[in-house]
Amino acid sequence: MSASIITLLTDFGESDGFVGTMKGVIYGINPDVKIVDISHDIEPQNTSEAAFVLRNSYRYFPDGTIHVIVVDPGVGSVRRILCVSANNQYFVAPDTGVLKYIYHECDDVLVVNVSNRKYFLSFVSQTFHGRDIFSPVAAHLSRGVDMRELGEAITDYERGQIPELSEKANVIEGEVVHIDRFGNLISNIPFNKLENRDKLRVRVKNLTIDSLANSYAQVKTRRPVALIGSSGFLEVAYNLGNAKEELNCAIGEKIAVIFDD
Amino acid sequence: MSASIITLLTDFGESDGFVGTMKGVIYGINPDVKIVDISHDIEPQNTSEAAFVLRNSYRYFPDGTIHVIVVDPGVGSVRRILCVSANNQYFVAPDTGVLKYIYHECDDVLVVNVSNRKYFLSFVSQTFHGRDIFSPVAAHLSRGVDMRELGEAITDYERGQIPELSEKANVIEGEVVHIDRFGNLISNIPFNKLENRDKLRVRVKNLTIDSLANSYAQVKTRRPVALIGSSGFLEVAYNLGNAKEELNCAIGEKIAVIFDD
Amino acid sequence: MSASIITLLTDFGESDGFVGTMKGVIYGINPDVKIVDISHDIEPQNTSEAAFVLRNSYRYFPDGTIHVIVVDPGVGSVRRILCVSANNQYFVAPDTGVLKYIYHECDDVLVVNVSNRKYFLSFVSQTFHGRDIFSPVAAHLSRGVDMRELGEAITDYERGQIPELSEKANVIEGEVVHIDRFGNLISNIPFNKLENRDKLRVRVKNLTIDSLANSYAQVKTRRPVALIGSSGFLEVAYNLGNAKEELNCAIGEKIAVIFDD
Repeated sequence: MSASIITLLTDFGESDGFVGTMKGVIYGINPDVKIVDISHDIEPQNTSEAAFVLRNSYRYFPDGTIHVIVVDPGVGSVRRILCVSANNQYFVAPDTGVLKYIYHECDDVLVVNVSNRKYFLSFVSQTFHGRDIFSPVAAHLSRGVDMRELGEAITDYERGQIPELSEKANVIEGEVVHIDRFGNLISNIPFNKLENRDKLRVRVKNLTIDSLANSYAQVKTRRPVALIGSSGFLEVAYNLGNAKEELNCAIGEKIAVIFDD
Repeated sequence: MSASIITLLTDFGESDGFVGTMKGVIYGINPDVKIVDISHDIEPQNTSEAAFVLRNSYRYFPDGTIHVIVVDPGVGSVRRILCVSANNQYFVAPDTGVLKYIYHECDDVLVVNVSNRKYFLSFVSQTFHGRDIFSPVAAHLSRGVDMRELGEAITDYERGQIPELSEKANVIEGEVVHIDRFGNLISNIPFNKLENRDKLRVRVKNLTIDSLANSYAQVKTRRPVALIGSSGFLEVAYNLGNAKEELNCAIGEKIAVIFDD
Repeated sequence: MSASIITLLTDFGESDGFVGTMKGVIYGINPDVKIVDISHDIEPQNTSEAAFVLRNSYRYFPDGTIHVIVVDPGVGSVRRILCVSANNQYFVAPDTGVLKYIYHECDDVLVVNVSNRKYFLSFVSQTFHGRDIFSPVAAHLSRGVDMRELGEAITDYERGQIPELSEKANVIEGEVVHIDRFGNLISNIPFNKLENRDKLRVRVKNLTIDSLANSYAQVKTRRPVALIGSSGFLEVAYNLGNAKEELNCAIGEKIAVIFDD
């Protein structure tokens, strides 16, 4: 598995050089690896946002990819750092539930408590484990180190909370779990709940949409539209507009589907 | 042409993981390609801004580079996706005029309507063609697939509008077509219109500048300056200041050169 | 030293394609080099901020790395462009003091005034030396060109100002030299000044903190904390909060340590 891909997902922003520094550490250990940025603009310490962005990205990477997630409110505290294998990929992340979708969706999860200081930088700060632990661990992993070398396998890791659906006879109620750059509202209602249901309405705040569309462009400019988005979930958008602003909507807002068939 | 460069130019922003996902798809198909970000902060759906940024970038890449542009207001609608070869480079972009400068400046343009699903991901969403079509098509192209394999050659592509100059005896009037991070106002008046003209004035809004400078630093701090910018067009700036804010100026603002010789 | 790493640190932002263009130039000259972004969100023309970000990043890169810094208020003026070797690494930067920490911390500094146009692009604009000079020079350097080929060695380069400490018997006074994305206040008081001092207080604005912590998480949520940050300097933060906003604090603010032992 040498010379594979390491992805980085952090809340470090782009202005302080934190991400570049991590890349320096990684290339110092494995000059042949490829590094891909998933996002560094996760809201500071927002593990739920990071979890959702990771969920939508990881499956599009080749087998053997190592995903490093540093959204880490507890840096320097007793929270553990994990190396997880699942779906033929690896994840190096704090034990904060940021991998909740991986645990939920994958059958073959193996979790190790990263503790072998042999694979850390020799000096470990208390405030930048992304540089001193996550990066060197991922780089060594990319050179073929067995994940069981990193520490003991554990089963009491933090599984995290996935927002649940409320399902009644003719109504499914979920919530907005992500709002993307375009202001599109992405819910936790998966496409398979809506398959083969001909007549349905989608309701969020004061808005009711009477059918599912196939694309944003199927409605007029600045008109609302409901559709199955690219992550496989029900999404509410405004064509060439911004649903978040139009509806003054935030993450956690209820979103319901009412079936009329 | 294997193992070349793929560039990405989108309005996806950096926070949602869309760009990282595209890179996962590309590396899954061609692990040897290099990927370069041109910009992901194009204003949502602003094809003119993307067109101008592309114009200034593409010519600095080596032959065989594949430029992927996903600023795509019509995603999921009937708009076509094009693969264009010009200037010994390739462009994969929606048929929205975002390649207008390429069509305008290059002699050797070949345009193909990308339709061969063999080179798409097996599941194509209606909202994220960047991931499902543009990325795999570019990756296959980088592995040596002939662009004529992607679909039929066409000639009725959308050529787009390039803002025109109004030229009179002693006045050229153009407009601000781009404002960069520093607030510099870049016009569509090309350097060759101003060559060998000794006495000229530049006018934008209430401001008149009496000569062309060679560099920003040629005027005092926070003073206005007109010069030929790095893209070869007349530019109005404030040395160590911000012309956009000083002049309260937006894209489309008229800018004139008056010749006094 | 061929096929090494080139890092880029600029104030170009991400929206105009400037950085992508530089990468095109670099890959055109050396297709085998790796390019790492340190930051492109340095405040326009803020050489002090760039200097501090560089200081914290460069030492984590392997020997032979070439760091390109384009925060260049004097572009096109008579300011010189330097190639510096120090600490087994290279730096290509304007002669504005942006390398002040390198000069201050490294013993083996060699400085060359870059003037050999053989290693520039054939056309050099007056406003984008990042593209026309810095990038090609770095790329040629990465292919093994000797830095003495670039121009004459000089000793009268601009050394820059490093904010100094005021030290009295029981008080050290420094200042905030950087504020990171999380709003943490990073001072210029280095860790070794505080070693083996048991009783101390940290004062910034109206706030007094009575001891040093080991991590942010050692105090309660939204409580202030002083600790040695990842760059080796005294730092004031709010756990899961934002010290910059809580204290309404800017770069240059005084920060003092009072010893009570």
